Order: sequence, then structure tokens, then C-alpha cells
Amino acid sequence: MSWRDRLAELGIELPPVATPAGSYVPAVRTGSLVYTAGQVPVVNGVVAATGKVGAEVSPEEGQRLARVCALNALAAVDGLVGIDSVVRVVKVVGFVASAEGFTGQPAVINGASDLFAEVFGEQGKHARSAVGVAELPLGVPVEVELIVEVG
Amino acid sequence: MSWRDRLAELGIELPPVATPAGSYVPAVRTGSLVYTAGQVPVVNGVVAATGKVGAEVSPEEGQRLARVCALNALAAVDGLVGIDSVVRVVKVVGFVASAEGFTGQPAVINGASDLFAEVFGEQGKHARSAVGVAELPLGVPVEVELIVEVG
Amino acid sequence: MSWRDRLAELGIELPPVATPAGSYVPAVRTGSLVYTAGQVPVVNGVVAATGKVGAEVSPEEGQRLARVCALNALAAVDGLVGIDSVVRVVKVVGFVASAEGFTGQPAVINGASDLFAEVFGEQGKHARSAVGVAELPLGVPVEVELIVEVG
Repeated sequence: MSWRDRLAELGIELPPVATPAGSYVPAVRTGSLVYTAGQVPVVNGVVAATGKVGAEVSPEEGQRLARVCALNALAAVDGLVGIDSVVRVVKVVGFVASAEGFTGQPAVINGASDLFAEVFGEQGKHARSAVGVAELPLGVPVEVELIVEVG
Repeated sequence: MSWRDRLAELGIELPPVATPAGSYVPAVRTGSLVYTAGQVPVVNGVVAATGKVGAEVSPEEGQRLARVCALNALAAVDGLVGIDSVVRVVKVVGFVASAEGFTGQPAVINGASDLFAEVFGEQGKHARSAVGVAELPLGVPVEVELIVEVG
Repeated sequence: MSWRDRLAELGIELPPVATPAGSYVPAVRTGSLVYTAGQVPVVNGVVAATGKVGAEVSPEEGQRLARVCALNALAAVDGLVGIDSVVRVVKVVGFVASAEGFTGQPAVINGASDLFAEVFGEQGKHARSAVGVAELPLGVPVEVELIVEVG
């Protein structure tokens, strides 16, 4: 089954590629790797939530927003090379705007990682870093960047 | 036109390669990729500014400093493989030491991205993440790291 | 001398591969690169320290913890491809949970970089970024991620 069929089977529709917030592009291919820009939880061009996880934003809501970031990352890959060219997910970095004392970044970024597992199965397994940052662009609670191998 | 000629045409002179602040090197090549170390706004060995963007440092000044980081990153690439071997800019990560509530990281890091666009044109277009961190080495307001493809 | 012999000569024993804190794997290979997950200072499954560097944790202790992260990163590489396949260390990113005003991230992350130099010599020299973040998973003071080239 192609990844596109798999997405359809899961009832997942990739969003339109998010407009970059600065002087850059959504994704770049070099050799067999595609690097995405850091993706924020924008839905239809509108920021889905602002605030820090552990304060205005609950960890559960953070997790849901990380999934939105991950969908935007897949859209960026799809827009550049087509989702069916993905060989595997290589690396995820998740930045969580964190209130003082909030240390549950891994569970938040699982919202992204679990999506990749759902779609790509074994080939969705990736290395990952999750860190708690002070502030994120536009005040969003989560930002996710992605490296995939393509064939 | 070579990139070196292009720099000359723009009146841009690459600075000497900045001395690493720790036990590492300014740049490493692996295959067709060059990874630079995180570059800070050091000019002639002296930190150009300290403080957080949104407090002691204005966003405009942050943007100017991000351009200095980007020049240092290009110097690191040039020192390792020669600027003319650059095929394209792949990825930029920009860390902005951010005062509470400052969410304008994208505009700050545009200072770096716009330099790459100016020098490399279409081949300067890159994927990018910009995040707001708590503190940066030596108290600088901005740090930029770079991946370029070389031929 | 193989890297494994070199480790033995130095009296360094690689720890068991740390269990990921979320839905990801310790390391992934793509082409000739291995990316590790962000490694935290876990020893025998237990977090070795919590707190922020510059407050509860001294810079010296932070440096020691960065070395623990680096050992865990090498264990992740070894577990995936065997340490002897390492050609060189390419890139290190070090995240330091930093108290307000702490700007000594480079010295902290030297704890990781120096280990790579000790083990791999010239081939241990890497590009590096060190940044001060607001919070880290499980409250740890340091997180280190690694890219190595393998043959």
C-alpha cells in the first residue's frame, strides 16, 4: 500500500503547506534527505493556540498541537517530493514552549511521533530530541521539525 | 559568476573564522554536507552585543546580529571547503535569547536568511527553524547554525 | 586500534542503551549517517540529577552530566551499528537547562565534546551548538544529541 493510500485508510488528510513565517521554504531536499522547516500548529493559516505548556496550555492540548505540527511537516514533505517517496522518518526535534517547572516535553512531542508511527509503521520510527524553550514564534506552544529519507 | 565574485559584487567580505567557544571545530564535512557549529555575533573576536531580544536588544538589532552570525557561518564553510563549493543552503536553525513574551523570532532570524538569499539567490533558499531560548553562550542574543550542500 | 579497544584502554565502559522517554528509538541510520535521539544523564535507568545549571546544578556538575549524556549517545550508536563502524563525529547539539543569567553553556557541553575527543582523537572533532533552554525532560540539566558518520 502506498503512503497516500495509508493516509486515506486512516482518514488523515494532509493540510495545505503552511506559509513560512520568514525568508525560507517549507522543505529542502539534499541527496536522499528532506529537511522540513520548523512547523507550528497553524490550521488554515490560523494559529491553533498560543501560550506555554504547563500554564495556559495543558500537556494533552500540547500533544494534540504537536500532531498538527507533524501533519504540517508531512504536508511540507509531500509538497516537495510527494509523500510516497518517503523511505523512513529519520529525526524529529520538538520544541515545547514551557512554563517554569514543566518537564513533560516527551509526552507532548509524542503527539508528533505517534502520528509518524501510525502512518509509516516500522519506517516511522525515528530518533528524537524534545526540549523546553522559552518562547516560540507567534506565541505557539509547540514547534516540530523533521528529517525524512526519501527514495 | 562564482560565489566569491558574487560576495565581492555585493561588497561583502567574509570575516576570519571565529574561534570556537569550546572543544569543537567551526565546521565539518560529511559526504556532500557541511555542518557548521552554532555561530554567535562575534566581530574581530569580540562579542558584538549581549542581552535578550525583546528586552535589552531590539528586534531590529537582533536581526542585524543574526546577519553577523550568518556571515560567520559562511566564513566557517569557506574556511573548510571554500565558498565556491556551495551547491545550496539546506537548513538554518536560529536560536534567539528571548525576553518573556517576545515571539518575533522569525523576523530576527530573517537577518540570517536574507543574507543567504542575497548571496546565493535561488540556491540560498533553505528550511529553517527559529526558536526562543532562555540563555545563549557569552550572553549573546542570537546563535545560528547552518547546513549546506557542497559539490 | 579499534574504537572498542580504545574504549577499553581508556577504561570506559559503554552503558546499556537508555530507554527512550517517548515514542521514538535511540538512534537511526540513514546512508552513512547515524542520528541519535537526545540523550539525558540517565545512569542504570535513573536520572542522575535534576535542576538548572547556574542554580541547583553547578557548571562543573553540568559538565560531568554532559559526559554521561555523551556516553549514552555512544551506547545508542554502538547498539545500532557497532562503535567500530564510526568514521567520525559530525555534529553535537547540547541543550543546557539554564538558570536566568547563566551563559556558560560551552563549558558544560565540553563534558560531551571532550569525551568524543578522548575516544576518537582527530576523528572526534565535531561541529557543535550549545544553547540554554528553559526546561528539559524529567527535569534534567543537560541533553545532548549526536550525528556520526559511519562506514
